[in-house]
Amino acid sequence: PFLPLVPEMKFVEYNDVDALERSITDKTAAVIVEPIQGESGVIIPDDNYLKEVRELTEEREVLLILDEIQTGFGRTGKMFAFQHSGIEPDILCLAKGLGGGFPIGATLFSCNDFEPGEHGGTFIGNPLACAVANTVVRVIMEKKLVKNSERLGSYLLRELRERDLSVRGKGLMIGIDVLDGKRSVLDLIEKGILTIYSRNTVRVLPPLIIEKKHADQFLSAVEDIEL
Amino acid sequence: PFLPLVPEMKFVEYNDVDALERSITDKTAAVIVEPIQGESGVIIPDDNYLKEVRELTEEREVLLILDEIQTGFGRTGKMFAFQHSGIEPDILCLAKGLGGGFPIGATLFSCNDFEPGEHGGTFIGNPLACAVANTVVRVIMEKKLVKNSERLGSYLLRELRERDLSVRGKGLMIGIDVLDGKRSVLDLIEKGILTIYSRNTVRVLPPLIIEKKHADQFLSAVEDIEL
Repeated sequence: PFLPLVPEMKFVEYNDVDALERSITDKTAAVIVEPIQGESGVIIPDDNYLKEVRELTEEREVLLILDEIQTGFGRTGKMFAFQHSGIEPDILCLAKGLGGGFPIGATLFSCNDFEPGEHGGTFIGNPLACAVANTVVRVIMEKKLVKNSERLGSYLLRELRERDLSVRGKGLMIGIDVLDGKRSVLDLIEKGILTIYSRNTVRVLPPLIIEKKHADQFLSAVEDIEL
Repeated sequence: PFLPLVPEMKFVEYNDVDALERSITDKTAAVIVEPIQGESGVIIPDDNYLKEVRELTEEREVLLILDEIQTGFGRTGKMFAFQHSGIEPDILCLAKGLGGGFPIGATLFSCNDFEPGEHGGTFIGNPLACAVANTVVRVIMEKKLVKNSERLGSYLLRELRERDLSVRGKGLMIGIDVLDGKRSVLDLIEKGILTIYSRNTVRVLPPLIIEKKHADQFLSAVEDIEL
């Protein structure tokens, strides 16, 4: 019900650098990409995709915007997912994990295309939200939650693969291909496990404070139901 | 820097029902209007404007969306500004006062054009935000802050007019026309009074808990400076 969208955007197939290259013109301002696609079903890019996107955008003098709203703040086993591919974006979109449940979003710029005061809004720079985000980031670092995400994520991925499931992921961002996403999610809820689905992928996004016993609880729930 | 905007919108002069009528076509889905314009400098609609907009939108079967983000929750001396004109919108956009400083927004529908689950988002229905908003609304009602807004607003408007200032407003939403908005706001900050400006209008939007002594403090600050 929210159409029409903001105009003058082109959508290009993920993981296809050639299609991206063909779509860039003299009028292109920026390329925006998720370093791992979330809503689309935890799609991991090919090994060199993001590096090639970065090279292409530099070459064509186009800004690279990374949407790390879902992947940021340790979700993928690094503080930010772009660290897996050794690139850096010009603009970084953040939210979700930044607030640890408190509503906040942020946009970070390494370029200087904005002046102070150019953009404002009622809740921009909200003092309570900023205090919460400061604390969330400090706790993530002090409790080494990024390392925990990497360790428990690797464990879960390995164990799920040993159960012959079609699985992909990085850190605690895991997708399991199933016959019927909705049914699997409802079955897991019966077992006390909350996941979400995108079409026929169950998305497993546990909190970064998860311990091995919680991972094992999930694994035994998965064994009990038909995915 | 945020252009292009969402397409297929038309902008029509405020307070001009004929212009609005001419702009509505068979393709028009909705009319969106502020019951008092905020950013534009506290523009109060003519007495019958909103009533005529409501009649026109009903006649042409077009939804009426009221933006009460700034005017809602007692700001204008009524719980909602549309209550001044005896109309009801189909869709009501709310934020600011709903959270009492906590970031939250809400959209209310009296029509049934949405199905449950049709729209989602990370922070939609955020439990903490909803608990805060519940409390804010309860406090506004228990402390009779809408009445306070009406009473102190009337007092401020009367006193400002007696000082020969060009003033408009309803409740605690007051605009004062000045020679230089920015300079007046900076002068008032020197006196310990925080206001904002839109071009050459100083916007006075005190908290609803304001008492007469605070209003008098503002009035004497106004007397001390050249507006």
